[in-house]
Amino acid sequence: MIRISLDVMGGDFGPEVTIAGAAKALERHPDVSFILYGLKAECEPILQRFPKLRERSVFHDCELAVGMDEKPSAALRRGRYVSTMWRSIEAVKLGEADVAVSAGNTGALMAMAKFCLRTMAHIERPAIAAIWPTLKGESIVLDVGATIGADAQQLMDFALMGGAMARALFDAERPTVGLLNVGVEEVKGQEDVKEAGRLIREANLGTIHYHGFVEGDDIGKGTVDVVVTEGFTGNIALKAAEGTARQMAQLLREAMSRTLLAKIGYLFAKSAFDRLREKMDPRKVNGGVFLGLNGIVIKSHGSTDAEGFAAAIDVGYDMAHNGLTEKIAEDLRIYHARRQPPADPEAA
Amino acid sequence: MIRISLDVMGGDFGPEVTIAGAAKALERHPDVSFILYGLKAECEPILQRFPKLRERSVFHDCELAVGMDEKPSAALRRGRYVSTMWRSIEAVKLGEADVAVSAGNTGALMAMAKFCLRTMAHIERPAIAAIWPTLKGESIVLDVGATIGADAQQLMDFALMGGAMARALFDAERPTVGLLNVGVEEVKGQEDVKEAGRLIREANLGTIHYHGFVEGDDIGKGTVDVVVTEGFTGNIALKAAEGTARQMAQLLREAMSRTLLAKIGYLFAKSAFDRLREKMDPRKVNGGVFLGLNGIVIKSHGSTDAEGFAAAIDVGYDMAHNGLTEKIAEDLRIYHARRQPPADPEAA
Repeated sequence: MIRISLDVMGGDFGPEVTIAGAAKALERHPDVSFILYGLKAECEPILQRFPKLRERSVFHDCELAVGMDEKPSAALRRGRYVSTMWRSIEAVKLGEADVAVSAGNTGALMAMAKFCLRTMAHIERPAIAAIWPTLKGESIVLDVGATIGADAQQLMDFALMGGAMARALFDAERPTVGLLNVGVEEVKGQEDVKEAGRLIREANLGTIHYHGFVEGDDIGKGTVDVVVTEGFTGNIALKAAEGTARQMAQLLREAMSRTLLAKIGYLFAKSAFDRLREKMDPRKVNGGVFLGLNGIVIKSHGSTDAEGFAAAIDVGYDMAHNGLTEKIAEDLRIYHARRQPPADPEAA
Repeated sequence: MIRISLDVMGGDFGPEVTIAGAAKALERHPDVSFILYGLKAECEPILQRFPKLRERSVFHDCELAVGMDEKPSAALRRGRYVSTMWRSIEAVKLGEADVAVSAGNTGALMAMAKFCLRTMAHIERPAIAAIWPTLKGESIVLDVGATIGADAQQLMDFALMGGAMARALFDAERPTVGLLNVGVEEVKGQEDVKEAGRLIREANLGTIHYHGFVEGDDIGKGTVDVVVTEGFTGNIALKAAEGTARQMAQLLREAMSRTLLAKIGYLFAKSAFDRLREKMDPRKVNGGVFLGLNGIVIKSHGSTDAEGFAAAIDVGYDMAHNGLTEKIAEDLRIYHARRQPPADPEAA
C-alpha cells in the first residue's frame, strides 16, 4: 500500500484537474490510498463524480490555498501550517503519507518542503530532478531549478542522489552519470565542474558508473542515465528543449494541414502520428522530483491536465514504491563513512 | 563587392566541403570574391572542378592546417602566422578581406581571432552569437560558448552587440532584447543577471528595445530578437535544443517507415515533409558570429556539408554587407560617450 498526499488546490486548474488525475492514477495503481488537502466547498462536488477515488481517500478541509504567482517567502509566511500545500507535505513528515504531489508554484513548494522536511544529513542543497525523454528511453537531469550555481561538492551530491533516483526509477543496478559541460577545452570558468568530476571519480561509488563530461546534445541522445548540472543551466536547458519540441510539433501540424495531399497523407499515416505523439507526449514525463529532503515531494507542471497530473502521481508512486529516500540515505551514509573515517578509535 | 577569406582546410571534411560550399555561395552572391587559404596539393584538384569559383578567387598556399582536436593554446603556438586558419583571419586584419569564414575547431579559431584581431575598445570579452530558428523566424542567441560566467557589464555588452547584429541581420530598426533567466523568483545567484537588467534599462539605448527577462522556452517562441546569456548556459541550451530537434526528426522518420499505411501516407504528404525539413534544416542556420573583435569572423559547424558551409558564408556576407563591425563600434561609442562624460573641459 502506497499512501499519497495531494495538494488538491495546486496548479492552474486546481481540483478539476488534480482530482480527475488522482482517479486516473488509482485505476493504474489499485494499491494506492490518497490523503487529499483542499478547500471543501470547491472539491466536494468534483469528488462526488469519482466514487472509487472517494472510497480510497481521506479529505482534509484546509484554511487556504497558495496562489500560483505568490512569492515563495510570502507563501511560506501566509501558508505555513494551514495551506493545502503545506499540509500535504506535512503528511509526509508525520509519516502519514509516503509521498506528496503538488502542481502548485515551484518556488513556494520548494520553500515549504525545505522548511517542513529539512534537508538530509550531509546535503546542503536540495535539487529538482526532471525525467527527460531520450532516443534510448528516459534520463534524469538535475538540478533543473532548485538552486543556482552549485559548487563541486554540491554537484557531487547531485550525482549521488541522481544515481539513487535512477536505481529507483529505471531498475538499473549501476546507472551511468555524466557531468554537463561545454565542449571547448581550456575555457576558464569550469573549475567547479572539473573539480566535481574529480570528486565523483575519486569517490568511486559502487552505486553509479561515472561516464565523464557530456554536452547539451548528449541529453536527448540518452548518452547517460543521469545528467548532472547546476540549477540555472539545467532549468534553461530543460525549457529550451521543451520549446524546441513544441516548435517542431507546431511546424509538423502546419505542414500536415497545408495542402489536400498532405491532409490525405496524414489520414493514411494517422496511427503513425498517434504513436509519435504518444511517444513525445510531454504529459507522460510530468513530475519533477525534489531530492535531498527527508521525504519525497513531486512537483507537477502547473498547466497540465488530468493525464499529466496522473503521470506526476505515477512518478511519486514509483519513487515511494522503490524506496527512493532510503536509497539516497544509504548511499550518502556509505559515501560519507568512507570520506570521514570514524573518529572513535574503537571503531577502527 | 564583398571580399571573403576562407580557411579552406577547416572542418571535418576540409576542402571537399569548403570549396564546394564557396562555389554554391558564389552562385547566390555574384558580387563576392574569395581569398582562399589552403594546402595547395590538396586543394588544387578540387578547385579545378569549380572554374567559376577559381576565376573569382585568389589562392594562397600555406604551411599547415590546424587540427580539429588541437588544443587552442597548442594551435596558437604552432599555427600562428603560418596556418590556413591564422592567415584567413589576418586577411581581415590587413583589410584585404571583409570577413573570414572557417569550419575549423572553435577554441583554436577564437584564440587566433582574439590574438590577431584583438577585442574592440570597451569590450572585455568577445562572444559567439548563434542564429536560432524560431516560430516567428529567427533570433540571435549569445554567448553560446566563447567565455564562461559573464558579469553584469559583459552581459550588457552582449546586449549591445547582439542588438547591432540583429539590425545587420534582420533589418529591424530597434530589435527587442531579452535576458535569459529562470522563472522562479527569489532564487539566489542571479545577481549578475538582475544587475545586467538594471544596466541595460538604465543605458536606455536608442538602438534596442529591452524586453526584460525571458525563459528557456521563449527562445523557440521567438519572444525577442536577441537573447542574452553567458556562454556556458548558452552553449548547453543551444546543444540541448539541437539534440531535441534531431531526436524528434528521428522519431518522425521511424514512425513514417513503420507500417505500410504510414509509408503511403508519407508519399502523399511528401511535399509537406520536404517543406518541413527545409524549414528545420540545421544547415540553413549554420554560422556562429564572433562579436566584439576588430573584424568579422564566422564559425561554421565542423561537421557540415557544402550547403551548410555556404550558409555560413551567407551569414558572413550579410554581416559584412550590412556593416556589422561599424554598427557595433558606433553603438559602443555612443553608449560609452554617454556613460563617461569627456574629461576635456574644451569638449564640454
